[in-house]
Amino acid sequence: MTMPPESASTITTATVVFQPDGQTISVPTGTRLSRASADANVHIDAPCGDRGICGKCRVHIVGKVSPLSPAESRYLSRQQIAEGWRLSCQTIILGDCTVTVPRTSLQIAVDGAGREIAVKPSVRKIHLEIPPADIVDATSAFSRLKTALQTPNLRAGRAALRSLAFALKSVDGVTAVLAGDELIAVEQGDTTAEQFGLAFDIGTTTVVGALVDLRDGREVAVAASLNEQSRFGADVISRIKLANEDPTGLDRLNERIVAVLNSLITRMVEQADARRDRIYEVTLVGNTCMHHLALGVHPGSLGEAPYVAVVQDAISLPAGEVGLDVLKSARVYFVPIIAGHVGADTVGVILSTGIHHSDDIRLAVDIGTNGESVLGSSTRMVACSTAAGPAFEGTSILHGMRASDGAIQEVRIDDDVTLNVIGGSFPTGICGTGLIDAVAELRLAGLIDENGRLCSREDAPEGTPPALRHRLIQDHGTRAFRLSPQGSMLVTLTQKDIRELQLAKAAIFAGIQILMRELGVTEADLAEIDLAGAFGSYIRPDSARTIGLIPNVPLDRVRSVGNAARVGARLALISSEARAEAEHIARTVEHQELFAREEFMEAFSNAMLFPELPLPDADQLG
Amino acid sequence: MTMPPESASTITTATVVFQPDGQTISVPTGTRLSRASADANVHIDAPCGDRGICGKCRVHIVGKVSPLSPAESRYLSRQQIAEGWRLSCQTIILGDCTVTVPRTSLQIAVDGAGREIAVKPSVRKIHLEIPPADIVDATSAFSRLKTALQTPNLRAGRAALRSLAFALKSVDGVTAVLAGDELIAVEQGDTTAEQFGLAFDIGTTTVVGALVDLRDGREVAVAASLNEQSRFGADVISRIKLANEDPTGLDRLNERIVAVLNSLITRMVEQADARRDRIYEVTLVGNTCMHHLALGVHPGSLGEAPYVAVVQDAISLPAGEVGLDVLKSARVYFVPIIAGHVGADTVGVILSTGIHHSDDIRLAVDIGTNGESVLGSSTRMVACSTAAGPAFEGTSILHGMRASDGAIQEVRIDDDVTLNVIGGSFPTGICGTGLIDAVAELRLAGLIDENGRLCSREDAPEGTPPALRHRLIQDHGTRAFRLSPQGSMLVTLTQKDIRELQLAKAAIFAGIQILMRELGVTEADLAEIDLAGAFGSYIRPDSARTIGLIPNVPLDRVRSVGNAARVGARLALISSEARAEAEHIARTVEHQELFAREEFMEAFSNAMLFPELPLPDADQLG
Repeated sequence: MTMPPESASTITTATVVFQPDGQTISVPTGTRLSRASADANVHIDAPCGDRGICGKCRVHIVGKVSPLSPAESRYLSRQQIAEGWRLSCQTIILGDCTVTVPRTSLQIAVDGAGREIAVKPSVRKIHLEIPPADIVDATSAFSRLKTALQTPNLRAGRAALRSLAFALKSVDGVTAVLAGDELIAVEQGDTTAEQFGLAFDIGTTTVVGALVDLRDGREVAVAASLNEQSRFGADVISRIKLANEDPTGLDRLNERIVAVLNSLITRMVEQADARRDRIYEVTLVGNTCMHHLALGVHPGSLGEAPYVAVVQDAISLPAGEVGLDVLKSARVYFVPIIAGHVGADTVGVILSTGIHHSDDIRLAVDIGTNGESVLGSSTRMVACSTAAGPAFEGTSILHGMRASDGAIQEVRIDDDVTLNVIGGSFPTGICGTGLIDAVAELRLAGLIDENGRLCSREDAPEGTPPALRHRLIQDHGTRAFRLSPQGSMLVTLTQKDIRELQLAKAAIFAGIQILMRELGVTEADLAEIDLAGAFGSYIRPDSARTIGLIPNVPLDRVRSVGNAARVGARLALISSEARAEAEHIARTVEHQELFAREEFMEAFSNAMLFPELPLPDADQLG
Repeated sequence: MTMPPESASTITTATVVFQPDGQTISVPTGTRLSRASADANVHIDAPCGDRGICGKCRVHIVGKVSPLSPAESRYLSRQQIAEGWRLSCQTIILGDCTVTVPRTSLQIAVDGAGREIAVKPSVRKIHLEIPPADIVDATSAFSRLKTALQTPNLRAGRAALRSLAFALKSVDGVTAVLAGDELIAVEQGDTTAEQFGLAFDIGTTTVVGALVDLRDGREVAVAASLNEQSRFGADVISRIKLANEDPTGLDRLNERIVAVLNSLITRMVEQADARRDRIYEVTLVGNTCMHHLALGVHPGSLGEAPYVAVVQDAISLPAGEVGLDVLKSARVYFVPIIAGHVGADTVGVILSTGIHHSDDIRLAVDIGTNGESVLGSSTRMVACSTAAGPAFEGTSILHGMRASDGAIQEVRIDDDVTLNVIGGSFPTGICGTGLIDAVAELRLAGLIDENGRLCSREDAPEGTPPALRHRLIQDHGTRAFRLSPQGSMLVTLTQKDIRELQLAKAAIFAGIQILMRELGVTEADLAEIDLAGAFGSYIRPDSARTIGLIPNVPLDRVRSVGNAARVGARLALISSEARAEAEHIARTVEHQELFAREEFMEAFSNAMLFPELPLPDADQLG
């Protein structure tokens, strides 16, 4: 049997240029324009999923394309057609052409690393007419809606079907709200302009939420609150203990966190003057314990070796089941977790900082109540969690306090001490960033040695400025350094405080070292270090480096990325692609369990020391 | 290129005989035994879905099969193996063999027509061990459960994940409850012996429920109750009116029916001494209005032309969403409906009577508050609904009453009247079946003519026995026939009552005629008429034929099938195959809309007459 030789002449290609940004792609003729634009990374808004029933994907075309489709005649005015406007989902490319995409048809937001991301939430709103029933087509309203939406597999729960029955009375068409093949709601009239979502970061101490306009990914309101579970104990362990010991503990913890989320929702919808029943989607990140408690799942297994989660997959539930005061059928998406002690917040950090897309090796350190580190690139990522202890929170520090009015948040030492106090008045205590600064500056001033020993006034090195020497005092029977000015309330850094900081930073640094060893990389290989978290992102990079909290890299490679976990939650909210990435991250990041690992204990002991000074010039390393 | 000729000698087949019933099948060698048994219609219980993880599908084999698998070594004792026992899901047929299936591995129930049906509910329970987590496998409990169940796509909601966390403490393994790929619950220990479901028929007037053991399809408790929505009006129209006019009407109607279902559940679990959290599945049938109200969906569109439903597809919801007091994550399955006025109850009737499997043309008539008729065979089915009016319920009849104590339910007339009164005492009124009997017997006695005119004592035909003649009286100013004996409370059948019955039976008969015309069949083609429904199945077939309620067929072709709708609900509960059939029925039965159809009005007028007597001998027809 003879086959005709494959002939190059039978395949013709066309070049498509997308304006205003000039992306250019070569595609076989016969390709649908919507497909070509997606391949060219030009994200044209198409809520109906290229079915030709929303009329949103208008573009201006000069070039050889297929004739006008009936859908286009319906959605474009005569003048628009005359001017060369088309619907991208209806147009087939027949030859070279130039396509101009108006700003209104483009949906772009920016991720935590400044990377552009297409706004494509999993929820879509489509305004349409449900054809009326008559004797000839006496099928149900839901069947007619399925036909109109061209979604034969459309599913619907009770709330959506209820809303459908009510919307049938509308004289102005209806707006269908879809999440994939699921009908979330049917609203009367055209409500496509109101489309909101919520992104939450549930921390052990603080809960932060953002109300997001799903059309453009913009945050229209932000609110934060203490996690009211704190009244049952400051840390994760105390909450697990309550759930273990009190039969009502789990439900109380769950109700508490749901109440906090609901109070934040109330504040945000008031701020933005939005309707809560126009909130269709919620994403949640948090450490594994907060994740389980928000879900209402017993966290007991997280409290004992081998510290495993009950569930780590992504979970999507109706808001009514979770108890959130938004549209009952809204989808609540629990971002997946990586391991028992590396939660959805870390997935959010990775998503937001884009380590999973990076060609170079990067390190992200998220320091809050716990410290999670992630190291790697698009090829391979490893992560670990370390109990930083309470030092950074101020609770084990003699004059420690939270980062609120009166807290020393920054310390500079030369001939004397310069403080930056929150609120600008006299200090009443010191918070975590101030603590790190104080130790780093005293170390640079030669008043703390490599082992962490604070000099007494007597054994301070020669040349110590008198003002500093004068600050070396005794406080509560231990050596201390007075930070506060004379005449104000006494705030010191004590020898014991320094020991506490050493424990905290040693745990984090030892974890990082295990990760670096696992990947076989050195400090010189680190293209970037991202400091994340409510606390982590406020740390002065030079101080962090001086005390040996992070590896010694040039300062321009250290970046504060803010609450990257929350940014990750927002990305998972506005982009189904980002959500798919989150699920991939959770499955592929390799968790390094540190507990009972000898190698870690050794690294930890070594990391208790402060780095020798001066630090080697990082640029000369490697 | 030369292909080897297809050689018959390369395909070997084996004959497998299944005992004790002797089914025999020929299959290619290499076929899995579980597959061969399914093809031979031998339903071997295999809750784990042939994954080799439940050990239930034990059979005894003599013949040539594959060697023992590791799963079999795990689930069969040494003695069982020595005796020749195997797991059917693990065994490959290599030659002729005889397979004996023990009763305990067979799951068979009977449908409404006595047809055998495999008990295969969509819910499965599997007792297993979740391998403990350790440092090497520190994946989540849910991941380990998925692996143990060999169901990588397992999904779970909040309640199931909660139960999983609690069950982790079990020392005796856990029992996973699955519906397809969805995890419903995880229970501590081995609870496979407790596996219940509920089947409900929600009538406009009466609600009936059955608690079913899902292992064998047996009803372990049955309970009935008035539909408490009745306080808002006896018929569907009055309920739609309430929902239309009162903003709280829909919710009140929904709450009422959910409360009725819950009170029936309470009675049934008490009767059977079962736990309500071991109820995993619920099926519901009902007319379209009851369906919508139980779902909480506004029935407004059913109340005005063209009388369409909001939704007609099958719907599956968690019990928590529907409000039923069973396991919250139990699945509630709303059997699909056919059209606005032909509901899920009719689907249940078809499923139960098996018309959809019939080679011959059959007619089913379900008479309750409304009358639905279905005509056809496996090839094609048509259905219609007719408003029978309130006559059969007794409300428009002078001495009419429900079928309760004191109601005349049967009437025989020869020289005088013989009554069958519910409760056995003197009559206080007449119910629907008594009404039909009375008219039929008076017609046979010559006291009612073809037009429905009741004789007066004066114009009664000659030869009328004196006792009967004496009963022709006046009641409330109209001609009447005294049914009750002298000296007891007066119960009559009046001329007006006869007119009411004529209207009711004419509507039903005219509907049947439209269906027969649509299929082009005559009375002689009707292989069977099934009388169904709370009321319909109590009608005496000869009386129904005499008054022309049903076509004139030999009496041995008329069958009372009881509450066939409820039997259908039970079948959809115990068999996923039956459920698939229900969905096919709902999609394919052709609804004949009768309203505003001239042909129907004409048929209706004609049907107002009573058939001429004597009826032609049906056996000689055609």
